[in-house]
Amino acid sequence: MYLKNHLFLKVNRKMDSFDLSSYLFSKQKQVNRTIDEIIDQTTNSSVVVSAMRHSLLAEGKRIRPVLCIAASQAVGGRTEDVLMAACALEMIHAYSLIHDDLPAMDNDDLRRGKPTCHIAFNEATAILAGDALLTLAFEILSSIDLNPIKINDAVKWLRVINIIAKAAGYKGMIEGQIKDIAAEGNRIGLKDLEKMHALKTGALIEASISTGAILGNGSVEQIQQLNIYAKNIGLAFQVIDDILNVEGDPAVMGKDVGTDQVREKSTYPSILGIEKSKEFAKNLVNNALQALDYFDNKSDPLRAIAHYIIDRKK
Amino acid sequence: MYLKNHLFLKVNRKMDSFDLSSYLFSKQKQVNRTIDEIIDQTTNSSVVVSAMRHSLLAEGKRIRPVLCIAASQAVGGRTEDVLMAACALEMIHAYSLIHDDLPAMDNDDLRRGKPTCHIAFNEATAILAGDALLTLAFEILSSIDLNPIKINDAVKWLRVINIIAKAAGYKGMIEGQIKDIAAEGNRIGLKDLEKMHALKTGALIEASISTGAILGNGSVEQIQQLNIYAKNIGLAFQVIDDILNVEGDPAVMGKDVGTDQVREKSTYPSILGIEKSKEFAKNLVNNALQALDYFDNKSDPLRAIAHYIIDRKK
Repeated sequence: MYLKNHLFLKVNRKMDSFDLSSYLFSKQKQVNRTIDEIIDQTTNSSVVVSAMRHSLLAEGKRIRPVLCIAASQAVGGRTEDVLMAACALEMIHAYSLIHDDLPAMDNDDLRRGKPTCHIAFNEATAILAGDALLTLAFEILSSIDLNPIKINDAVKWLRVINIIAKAAGYKGMIEGQIKDIAAEGNRIGLKDLEKMHALKTGALIEASISTGAILGNGSVEQIQQLNIYAKNIGLAFQVIDDILNVEGDPAVMGKDVGTDQVREKSTYPSILGIEKSKEFAKNLVNNALQALDYFDNKSDPLRAIAHYIIDRKK
Repeated sequence: MYLKNHLFLKVNRKMDSFDLSSYLFSKQKQVNRTIDEIIDQTTNSSVVVSAMRHSLLAEGKRIRPVLCIAASQAVGGRTEDVLMAACALEMIHAYSLIHDDLPAMDNDDLRRGKPTCHIAFNEATAILAGDALLTLAFEILSSIDLNPIKINDAVKWLRVINIIAKAAGYKGMIEGQIKDIAAEGNRIGLKDLEKMHALKTGALIEASISTGAILGNGSVEQIQQLNIYAKNIGLAFQVIDDILNVEGDPAVMGKDVGTDQVREKSTYPSILGIEKSKEFAKNLVNNALQALDYFDNKSDPLRAIAHYIIDRKK
């Protein structure tokens, strides 16, 4: 307990000097600019390019790219060395949203206040735009300059591709979506809920952090600690999402609240109640922060993100 | 002209001693067995696994895996070194068929005499099974054992991932499907038809052959010659497909003929007429065979496949 308090004092002290908003803004800008350059509309007028850009360049937190960059930084890496991986992770996230929104899945017309891809274009184009973003992610993950001096980098990138593919695949994110669909209208227990989130959102968040740590040349121990951080903030993020759906401000969030209850969705608040859910989220964030105790102040962005996850209003 | 005749005599002589049926059978069996092991139903009862297996293990020519293996062999490589890549190529092909068959795309209920994935399961599962196969392809392409002794292999596999992702992506196969959908009900010219096929089927066939050649440690010149072979047989395959849709035997083909005309699809026969289409296909195959003149008899399987493409009845 003393250790925990001590940790928090340290964290809080450090946090005073770290401006997360500026950090997020600058990293989001770098990611958006790079994505904009990769999927260049000026040289390719295909409808699939417009559809990819429609979804990928929509306003978003860029949480996966930022986590990737921040994890790399925590182990001493540079943003420019992980930027392509960061963009690839956002592409995979965007593809999953496009396909999840389809009529055969969640059938959503709006996302972030904009028409979803199949509404703005059509269903065939949306399916193909999702496919294209997923494929492009692997194209850019494998497109590093392989001049002889960087030959060892190839091993790292291959490892990263494998981690990301596993996280996004049928034993990760895709199985999470299958479980989410199966859970619709069926009450599920806490264990199944946690498993579903660990797969549907947790796996890619963990992969984002591992990717940053590997490309930043983190040690085995550093990567292990960052994995603990990742598992905890991944789940905390989802618990807070559920809480915001109960007591968030629709004006701040830019979307309706109370929808989970209407849909009879199993959520943390519906299973644990709102207070216990908050406590659970707080514990998860504490665990995440504790894992960062292993690092110096280069991990401040990761610390700030953990605080942001629990304090966010949208 | 003399050179061409000379080449053909040589080719014909060689072909006498090469049994393509046994070759195809043995390679298809190896590929099917490996796929069966990779997507293991006994340890994973998820519906998405059943859907992936339904489509991937359906009867098929396995033309892309066989081309990959045969290209590797032509440059002196071994089947076992490219088997994972061969399976990945088939997974990408299978994913593209699942998504192309969806109601929002071609809306096909049957493929190879079996219900399509969205009929056998449902639309959401079919979309996710396609996504899962595409993702799994990149997982297995990046899953080679990276012990230090094989460090140079990482560079080759990274290159292969990049080639396959480009071929399958929005500048390749996906753009081909976009063009195919756009062409429906619109007569298009020869140039646009060729472009559409080069993207929709040609790109992945070329990637299959490049992949085999690279992993088999082919020289730059060998890879160049195999690319010429690939471009020509890729297009020839499509021209023959169009011809079989006009004059094939439904009983042998296991599917209806004349459907292109009913759908008012632009095809080689509809643009060039049947005889000129046959001549065109023959010329393409001749070009492909000529490119193989650069190789010794280890390229016999590729020669036999070129002959098979033009002689096939289904």
